[in-house]
Amino acid sequence: MNVALLGHGTVGKGVTDIIENEKIEGIRIVRILTRTKRENNDERFTVDFGQIINDETIDTIVECMGGEEPAYSYVKECLEKGKNVISANKKMLARHMDLFELAKERNVKLLVEASTAGGIPWIRNLCDISRDDSILSLQGIFNGTSNYILSGIFEEDISFEDALFKAQEFGFAEADPSDDVCGHDVRYKVCIAILAAFGKIAREEQIFARGIDHLSSREISYARENDMVIKLIGQAGYNEGKLSACVLPHFVTKGSLYSCVGGNDNLCICQSKYLGKLSLIGQGAGSYPTGHSILQDLIDVRDKRAYEWHIEGEEEIFQDIEAEFYISSDHFFPEELIKERIDESSFLSRKCRLCDLMKYLKEEDFIAMME
Amino acid sequence: MNVALLGHGTVGKGVTDIIENEKIEGIRIVRILTRTKRENNDERFTVDFGQIINDETIDTIVECMGGEEPAYSYVKECLEKGKNVISANKKMLARHMDLFELAKERNVKLLVEASTAGGIPWIRNLCDISRDDSILSLQGIFNGTSNYILSGIFEEDISFEDALFKAQEFGFAEADPSDDVCGHDVRYKVCIAILAAFGKIAREEQIFARGIDHLSSREISYARENDMVIKLIGQAGYNEGKLSACVLPHFVTKGSLYSCVGGNDNLCICQSKYLGKLSLIGQGAGSYPTGHSILQDLIDVRDKRAYEWHIEGEEEIFQDIEAEFYISSDHFFPEELIKERIDESSFLSRKCRLCDLMKYLKEEDFIAMME
Repeated sequence: MNVALLGHGTVGKGVTDIIENEKIEGIRIVRILTRTKRENNDERFTVDFGQIINDETIDTIVECMGGEEPAYSYVKECLEKGKNVISANKKMLARHMDLFELAKERNVKLLVEASTAGGIPWIRNLCDISRDDSILSLQGIFNGTSNYILSGIFEEDISFEDALFKAQEFGFAEADPSDDVCGHDVRYKVCIAILAAFGKIAREEQIFARGIDHLSSREISYARENDMVIKLIGQAGYNEGKLSACVLPHFVTKGSLYSCVGGNDNLCICQSKYLGKLSLIGQGAGSYPTGHSILQDLIDVRDKRAYEWHIEGEEEIFQDIEAEFYISSDHFFPEELIKERIDESSFLSRKCRLCDLMKYLKEEDFIAMME
Repeated sequence: MNVALLGHGTVGKGVTDIIENEKIEGIRIVRILTRTKRENNDERFTVDFGQIINDETIDTIVECMGGEEPAYSYVKECLEKGKNVISANKKMLARHMDLFELAKERNVKLLVEASTAGGIPWIRNLCDISRDDSILSLQGIFNGTSNYILSGIFEEDISFEDALFKAQEFGFAEADPSDDVCGHDVRYKVCIAILAAFGKIAREEQIFARGIDHLSSREISYARENDMVIKLIGQAGYNEGKLSACVLPHFVTKGSLYSCVGGNDNLCICQSKYLGKLSLIGQGAGSYPTGHSILQDLIDVRDKRAYEWHIEGEEEIFQDIEAEFYISSDHFFPEELIKERIDESSFLSRKCRLCDLMKYLKEEDFIAMME
């Protein structure tokens, strides 16, 4: 099996390292596409995508270049040419779900284990479970960077700014961390998990997403005083036939499973009719965990053992999730939504649907769900 | 695909229910073997194994009868006749590891997801991970009954006897719970997980196993005073090329991942070179979770997508695991092993190897590992 890598950053290097160290049989990396010319003697490196797309001996592509373009165009072209694609690119995949249908049409594999929850075998298990079970809901901690920041705040007692700086210093956060801390990254992953669990194509913009970027010392103190911590959680689930999904910070009790997931670890939970509740915890990012997930997909393709997508089509997403919410806002909220005022700018809501609050919520407000 | 069930108790009924409810395609249960004749109009029921073994249209057997015999003889005969076998029978499998080699020899599948950790996809993920990664160690809570009892003791503040009685009343414990509470059941599951993770055949009797049957109010008080709970944990792992394995109660800190796994849930952890630490939590028993695991194996056989065993042969098991231990004993232990006396009959050991203590340990003593 001849494989080309698109991109050779952290993830791509993980893949080539593991193949080399473990002497994985039958998987040969024959081309590596990079943006700029590499000064080395490895003849596999190229900056010309044409050398990959036009090479009929290459049957499988690993896309780990990140970003929407040119990744999308390259992947699309590869699938159209009948090449299997393994992708770690959550943003591109979530925005171009048509690729999954294209792969099916061309009878090739599009496998994406590495795109969601790094090393955790989440996508393959969702696809497998849904073969004989009905998944009812999924939720979890899907962003290692914000979890690292939140763990720093609550375990090491440092400020948001210091925790973010530390995350950047240790390579857990990008120079521009907005996708991670604003909840967008989690939203991409929820889209992909919705496809694996429910067979539905969700449109990113329909999923309400808020991150931890507006988190202030007020919420941190409130959590501490009430023996809780804050976690950024993505979730999706059916209720009375309607699929709701959102990404929100949550106040969770100390000692709960959520509170045990520290550092840049991820937590993935699914609830289904027969299996009940299943939780997976592991590394959500990093060269080797993510490289390992790509290799799992590659070996599945090699052995013709890949998990299957069961695509049923597009689905409208609602914000019907019912809970009590914590809100910090200087704007008007109707009294009937308010259960308890914490101080002049923050309150706990009565049990209500997220959509009931969204009407009054402004971009600069902080909102979190109470567990 | 024509399937025969051997046994139609809790697990077998889970399998037939799910197939019927979910209209699983291509899997037909054509025969169901029971010990005694069933008074119903379902012509699939039989008490004659001959009707199954001699029926060449039956290609796959699901063994969920439990017990060592006649399960072992039946499974062996089925494999020899070229039938795939799916088994939920941990005791029989752990004691007859030759079956895995026989299946390989006859080029049929022997899949055992349901034998270990009920609904949790533990075995398939261990087998898959070990394709490109080196698993270094595994550990977890593998017995739902004793976890239910321990959760009762520490969460509901009831005695061992009351917790056991409650477990029996709710169907989580057998009338004779000794396999569950003495650690034997966990030992079977550790044997099976060792095969999946390391490709090694371990002999049950080489794995030191103690349960919670000698747990007294002394240890319960000690745990409470130190903000800990007790969990029954099975583990195996390599250290300097030697494979150690044991089953022991552990004192674990409140708020740790272990302490979050309550009720009859199971926890499965593996640590590997590339993936790092992966933890799975879910239902360890029950008709539907276990039935679901059997169906996952059946669908894998149907779709020719089953996980593969990588059997390397027998391996000697050591008790080299190093830790501090808690011991309650009225017998002699050398002073150099003792770090701190708790009362006249119990002490904390210095950091030492389990085998250093085993020389002095009597059957009636209580031993636990300190986390």
